[in-house]
Amino acid sequence: MASVRNLLVFRQLFHKETSTYTYLLACKQTMKAVLIDPVLDCVERDLKLLRELGVQLVYGINTHVHADHITGTGKLKQALPDCKSVLGSKSGGRADIFVDQSERLKFGNLASMLECRSTPGHTNGCTTFVLHDGAMAFTGDALLVRGCGRTDFQQGSPSTLYESVHSQILSLPKHYKLYPAHDYKGFSVTTVEEELAHNTRLTKSKEEFIKIMDNLNLPYPKRIDESLPANLICGVTDPVSS
Amino acid sequence: MASVRNLLVFRQLFHKETSTYTYLLACKQTMKAVLIDPVLDCVERDLKLLRELGVQLVYGINTHVHADHITGTGKLKQALPDCKSVLGSKSGGRADIFVDQSERLKFGNLASMLECRSTPGHTNGCTTFVLHDGAMAFTGDALLVRGCGRTDFQQGSPSTLYESVHSQILSLPKHYKLYPAHDYKGFSVTTVEEELAHNTRLTKSKEEFIKIMDNLNLPYPKRIDESLPANLICGVTDPVSS
Repeated sequence: MASVRNLLVFRQLFHKETSTYTYLLACKQTMKAVLIDPVLDCVERDLKLLRELGVQLVYGINTHVHADHITGTGKLKQALPDCKSVLGSKSGGRADIFVDQSERLKFGNLASMLECRSTPGHTNGCTTFVLHDGAMAFTGDALLVRGCGRTDFQQGSPSTLYESVHSQILSLPKHYKLYPAHDYKGFSVTTVEEELAHNTRLTKSKEEFIKIMDNLNLPYPKRIDESLPANLICGVTDPVSS
Repeated sequence: MASVRNLLVFRQLFHKETSTYTYLLACKQTMKAVLIDPVLDCVERDLKLLRELGVQLVYGINTHVHADHITGTGKLKQALPDCKSVLGSKSGGRADIFVDQSERLKFGNLASMLECRSTPGHTNGCTTFVLHDGAMAFTGDALLVRGCGRTDFQQGSPSTLYESVHSQILSLPKHYKLYPAHDYKGFSVTTVEEELAHNTRLTKSKEEFIKIMDNLNLPYPKRIDESLPANLICGVTDPVSS
């Protein structure tokens, strides 16, 4: 089998208003593609890119039910009926495919495919997707560059998040690249090694971490009242699933 | 010699206000690093990242004298006196090192180092930096994803830009990744192959391209009156060079 370097098309895309990253992964042999955390406002951009790259979207994956933006998965499915929506089984949301710990999502001829790792704590259904042949993991809001997602709404639990990140993400090999769902300071990627050394919260003891998270006093998320109900049904324009 | 994959540390950084990309390249063997197009507002972030990665900045490179933001090179040099500023020889600006067509900037043990290619047209001093072992080129404002820099001020010339991009950038091997100085739609990278097929301006004939560029009717750049004078002396806080 050809190396992942020759097989994988990888693109990091950004939604400026909510500082959200969307990831396109595609197999060059089969031209099958997945999008991780697509954003409703960017669906036209993403559809154009898929067409230009000549790839076929098989999965619209959400790492979790987002509170800050509306997912693009529903609208993508409307445009591309063969695309299936994917969500963690404990998310409480609607999707075509629910994934659990250790399941693998297949797209194209990549050897390892996407390994699903349950990383609850920001929300119950948070999932990290690991592409072992690329030494990459897509961490959603569980782990951000030098930080992590908040734990003060949507079933959030600092204790659970601490366990998830340490057992499922920071236990990966040190050179693995970690791609977050958001960044607010202009970082695009980090590594396991860097976060083990420099994460401002997760390098602390569990007790200190819980204290930090319980005292963030963050404002109520701007778009949560609009985003959550829409994202629970996989985006506003999701056609009725069977 | 080890492969570039094992030798190169690569980070793409973003300044949201001006949609500017800054690139960090470092050699893992020698820990020597360069920054391409650092932004004044982000210098503290970038210094912290350099420290955390344990790398030593040898060059603060500008692809050209920017009109939209103030370069971080001067402030970086103040913090890191061993760092040299780099600029194209036809830029009209001040720098420690001026580069011309086909020169190579050495940092660390990367085999090919950064090849400098003159790509005038947006400004006279525009330079594209090519890292052949990584199959990557940093195109500044000469080529943007599906577009290009404007040509209506600062010695701009659509005819010159067309020649530059076709002879120096789109003539690279098709799989080379192209990293622009800006993106306003959330794209982070493109390839020679994609731009040859899908660039909305540069796939046209030279005559059509000139007509498009002459009729863009873009607004006067917001920060040009502040940025240009500062950037001509390598950023506001550049210490007096010898």
